[in-house]
Amino acid sequence: MEVQELLKNRRSIRDYEEKEVPVETVTDIIRESCLAPSSGNGQPWQFVVINRKETMKRLSDESKKNLLSDIAQNPDSPAKKYEDILRNKEFNVFYNAPCLVYVIGPRDYRSLDVDCSLFACYFMLTAAARGLGTCWIGLGTNVRTPELMREIGIPKGCRIVAPIIIGYPKNIPEPSPRNEPKMLKIVS
Amino acid sequence: MEVQELLKNRRSIRDYEEKEVPVETVTDIIRESCLAPSSGNGQPWQFVVINRKETMKRLSDESKKNLLSDIAQNPDSPAKKYEDILRNKEFNVFYNAPCLVYVIGPRDYRSLDVDCSLFACYFMLTAAARGLGTCWIGLGTNVRTPELMREIGIPKGCRIVAPIIIGYPKNIPEPSPRNEPKMLKIVS
Repeated sequence: MEVQELLKNRRSIRDYEEKEVPVETVTDIIRESCLAPSSGNGQPWQFVVINRKETMKRLSDESKKNLLSDIAQNPDSPAKKYEDILRNKEFNVFYNAPCLVYVIGPRDYRSLDVDCSLFACYFMLTAAARGLGTCWIGLGTNVRTPELMREIGIPKGCRIVAPIIIGYPKNIPEPSPRNEPKMLKIVS
Repeated sequence: MEVQELLKNRRSIRDYEEKEVPVETVTDIIRESCLAPSSGNGQPWQFVVINRKETMKRLSDESKKNLLSDIAQNPDSPAKKYEDILRNKEFNVFYNAPCLVYVIGPRDYRSLDVDCSLFACYFMLTAAARGLGTCWIGLGTNVRTPELMREIGIPKGCRIVAPIIIGYPKNIPEPSPRNEPKMLKIVS
């Protein structure tokens, strides 16, 4: 698919077919996405792949529990606007996708957010070029229980930047609206 | 160009033809890149386009001056490894590119780095699809003099996330090396 067509047609997918993504496909997409640029070519990204729905359900429950606890402690928490849906027992933050990739890196690495975001962008685009859907799940970063972190292989010194679900899209939504670009100044 | 071919062939370009990029082309690329996803579709990105080499030279000098001052105050500054080149009067942090786009946004916006990085990724890819070269210039974020900020239209409450140069590539470098993906765990 042509690049510009892909940028136009890519959507965040929250509704998936009941069909597994082969681990080899996911690792191929990860390998290709490592072509993303990073600050000083530092490539700080590391990966955990969860290709099992039962584990993803537990990670969703953990994230929901921690976010609700954040809200209880701080009513100004940015998670506050999600409170109702987080209280819904049926809601899975990973939308019942078949697979989840955690993009993580050293907690104190200076450009970690930027570098992992560039990786994530490549990941979402090259997945879309293969007919796969993805969605960056901001609510999925809140895994804190040490046993669970250990179980899924996230080292203590690392931080989750991007939890990205991936699977075969069932419904492709309409594009979400975009604002006009806010051009503050053109010096020419 | 096919997406996967583009991801493979895109390079960070630091050597440009002496040829201006029409402002309309730059604004077209910005508009297209606003299709990037952002947290909660918040689209916090705003833009300043500097399409004048003389201004870019002054912005380079300002960044160099501020980075050298950071190093003098803190020898552990991450800029320390660039000290020699920053002292070189001939060095322009923007590599004499013809045009510079500052991607900026509200200083305290929670997901600003992530959102602007996703925008920057789209920008670099769609520019490459048009035969244009780009490079994210980390050293170019250090504009602090209030008069200069005002002159180029960056509001006080905003922060520069991504200074991206753009122009017609003169030399396309070999790919910089990539590590094997660091797969910490696959749960399947």
